[in-house]
Amino acid sequence: MKGFTSIQDVARLEDLLSLARSMKADPHQFTMLGRGKTLCMLFFNPSLRTRLSTQKAAQLLGMHVMVMNLNSDGWNIELEDGTTMNGSSKEHIKEAAGVVSRYCDIIGLRTFASLDDRDKDYEEVLMNKFIAHATVPVISLESATLHPLQSLADLMTIREQARTHRPKVVLTWAPHPKALPQAVANSFVQWMRASEVDLVITHPPGLELAPRFVEGLKVTHCQEEALEGADFVYAKNWSSYTDYGKSVAGWEDWMITEEKMTMTHNGKFMHCLPVRRNVVVSDAVLDGPQSIVLEQAHNRVYAAQAVLKMLLDEA
Amino acid sequence: MKGFTSIQDVARLEDLLSLARSMKADPHQFTMLGRGKTLCMLFFNPSLRTRLSTQKAAQLLGMHVMVMNLNSDGWNIELEDGTTMNGSSKEHIKEAAGVVSRYCDIIGLRTFASLDDRDKDYEEVLMNKFIAHATVPVISLESATLHPLQSLADLMTIREQARTHRPKVVLTWAPHPKALPQAVANSFVQWMRASEVDLVITHPPGLELAPRFVEGLKVTHCQEEALEGADFVYAKNWSSYTDYGKSVAGWEDWMITEEKMTMTHNGKFMHCLPVRRNVVVSDAVLDGPQSIVLEQAHNRVYAAQAVLKMLLDEA
Amino acid sequence: MKGFTSIQDVARLEDLLSLARSMKADPHQFTMLGRGKTLCMLFFNPSLRTRLSTQKAAQLLGMHVMVMNLNSDGWNIELEDGTTMNGSSKEHIKEAAGVVSRYCDIIGLRTFASLDDRDKDYEEVLMNKFIAHATVPVISLESATLHPLQSLADLMTIREQARTHRPKVVLTWAPHPKALPQAVANSFVQWMRASEVDLVITHPPGLELAPRFVEGLKVTHCQEEALEGADFVYAKNWSSYTDYGKSVAGWEDWMITEEKMTMTHNGKFMHCLPVRRNVVVSDAVLDGPQSIVLEQAHNRVYAAQAVLKMLLDEA
Repeated sequence: MKGFTSIQDVARLEDLLSLARSMKADPHQFTMLGRGKTLCMLFFNPSLRTRLSTQKAAQLLGMHVMVMNLNSDGWNIELEDGTTMNGSSKEHIKEAAGVVSRYCDIIGLRTFASLDDRDKDYEEVLMNKFIAHATVPVISLESATLHPLQSLADLMTIREQARTHRPKVVLTWAPHPKALPQAVANSFVQWMRASEVDLVITHPPGLELAPRFVEGLKVTHCQEEALEGADFVYAKNWSSYTDYGKSVAGWEDWMITEEKMTMTHNGKFMHCLPVRRNVVVSDAVLDGPQSIVLEQAHNRVYAAQAVLKMLLDEA
Repeated sequence: MKGFTSIQDVARLEDLLSLARSMKADPHQFTMLGRGKTLCMLFFNPSLRTRLSTQKAAQLLGMHVMVMNLNSDGWNIELEDGTTMNGSSKEHIKEAAGVVSRYCDIIGLRTFASLDDRDKDYEEVLMNKFIAHATVPVISLESATLHPLQSLADLMTIREQARTHRPKVVLTWAPHPKALPQAVANSFVQWMRASEVDLVITHPPGLELAPRFVEGLKVTHCQEEALEGADFVYAKNWSSYTDYGKSVAGWEDWMITEEKMTMTHNGKFMHCLPVRRNVVVSDAVLDGPQSIVLEQAHNRVYAAQAVLKMLLDEA
Repeated sequence: MKGFTSIQDVARLEDLLSLARSMKADPHQFTMLGRGKTLCMLFFNPSLRTRLSTQKAAQLLGMHVMVMNLNSDGWNIELEDGTTMNGSSKEHIKEAAGVVSRYCDIIGLRTFASLDDRDKDYEEVLMNKFIAHATVPVISLESATLHPLQSLADLMTIREQARTHRPKVVLTWAPHPKALPQAVANSFVQWMRASEVDLVITHPPGLELAPRFVEGLKVTHCQEEALEGADFVYAKNWSSYTDYGKSVAGWEDWMITEEKMTMTHNGKFMHCLPVRRNVVVSDAVLDGPQSIVLEQAHNRVYAAQAVLKMLLDEA
């Protein structure tokens, strides 16, 4: 593995999943592997789960960890080439990436979606520019359009909880008061495609995901039809791809409730967190036995540990 | 110990004090105890002493430490149950506590007083909700109404410096330009009650502490009378309990001065820090030989180390 | 070494350089030296390189590291003596320095120039007050008027890259949209003076550095004359010393370009970073083979490691 920014960086998915499971069984089995090695995590926007789980994972492998909130601990980073930098940006991403590479062995980078310029977001300009100028492997801690560490943990959780060889997995759009990126949804679809699941995507009209991610998949505007017999219900809000970055109101009844969960095959409720209660999902579902959101969050540690181990092995 | 949020969590106070003293004598004696274990410290508001001393203590015990400023590194946390979270809060405390529990072995949590809703503050709603949903032990790094790590360090300092078996300890209200919580004062009273000291509390009329903390204790509105023969003078501002959270002006002459210290029995001056010079206490006292504020701050490390060791022993 | 705030703290410069080179050759040779010791880094303003490189250096030596952004993680610090602290400052530097000293073995401190009160800046009031009240060694992570860790890395880089025993080194003022401190320039001059180089300083009229730093040195207002035959071109903006702290516009043509670099003796381009592209230096120079800015940044780790080792040896 040269880095980890999407499922395309994974040569053998089953090996990675098996490694993650092994990490969970014995998190302390490789405490010497990362000795003397440093992970530097750089955040362009806030994070709780990703930050703590990845830091924990690296420390379990014996690594040192340095964390920086780029825009508050540091300063604005210029992303454009050829500009005359006489405005608010104090450092170009070329130097930032080049310098940080010299201070650590692996970089974890959290970028963000502008939700404004779709092409730029989907070209992952910030992540790719950083990687182009970095000289050590880069792990995505979520980018503009993908969140692979989350998806790996999600898939790991589905495998743990599945009662059948080929579970029915529903990805359902959910309401939210603010416009959110499509990253978690896109990434989840990528990882589900690579696994043995019966994936159904459901969302209101106008909230189609990017064609490159969903083509060939089952998509319906009828949430009830989708939920029918589901083993797993993954709820997530995303803003519009076509009317890019706009939030769409008027679909409050897409919230996941106990009543809806009764349509499933005693399905498990999943969400990447943070989740807005009684907007995305009702208290009753989240606090009930069908919710496995904390297991997903828990598996973030082992997903990160598996990815870090793979990178350390090849370093 | 299941956690540490007040003196009520301490089964045998003398054992804890003895352990803290032993830690001070040899801070490196248990460097393997916390190996592979993680302390996650979460701050809802700024901290210097608590943050650094607790981090130092955990590292001396071999633990990994992760620090998060929840509201700046993370996001607003919803505390109410049953609300429709379509406002500024992005995550409910149930999920926050549940998730962080999965990423560490002990949680250190700093909450704050609203100084607005007295019942809520005194019920320690934030601390208790977090604990209710956490699955690992929680250490208070100061809560709305208590600051037990500070009090343990304070008591340890008094024991070190006491010239008599039963010293006279005065807790005196002091002036301050802003409204402050009652946490340090309440907690100090709790720990003094549990120890062999002659405690006297003094404050201007209208600044009574909560009855549950002070009933049965000597309280006087005459600062001079209280200071007479004192071995220790603990100064601290607090806002009104009766007119809850309001600061009370007009008592500037309650500042501790050299002249006042002459009334004591060559008493030591104590304060939890940070302290506003020439408002709470004069430069002359703070810079003079009677001040032991830096010893108190120093003992914060060993107080935290003792508490962490007790929790690790039972994990 | 009792601390490290300027070249005057260095007893034998060649020993320090030799140690830094040795650290670069084998960064892991002293992983036990700092075991159980703690470095606490305090920042009054943002930092990327200094923060990460010093943290990395300390961890390579086996130290624990604690990082605090004083003004965001903590609170405003009072610097004046004798004031009645009833304003926005919550803690006096006396207590801050005294307390932090009790929580670590070495303190790294980043202070800043007011660019307003020249005497105060040049007296290094903040750095010196902190040191006066600290009880452990203090390393400057840049102060109001000096940046010795940067200069050590700069000198180390020049030694690595020099083709002659006595290279010609040019320090040239460069344009910048905001008023910047003179710290990097002052400090660079100090360290160059102590080494075998032919130093020439060039800047527009009115941008003279402080006499105490430059007296006896070659200074010219003709940038072209200075660049002639240079082995190293160190570009850096600084604001006016005479019209203190004012930025000076109208000298945009002092930017370093490829054309200017052709005047040199195939000279290397240096800058401490962060650098504003196409303002201080053109893209072509920074992206070309003559730029050694990333090597300078890289050497920051070994400079810090050498200084930390010296301090640990004497502790």
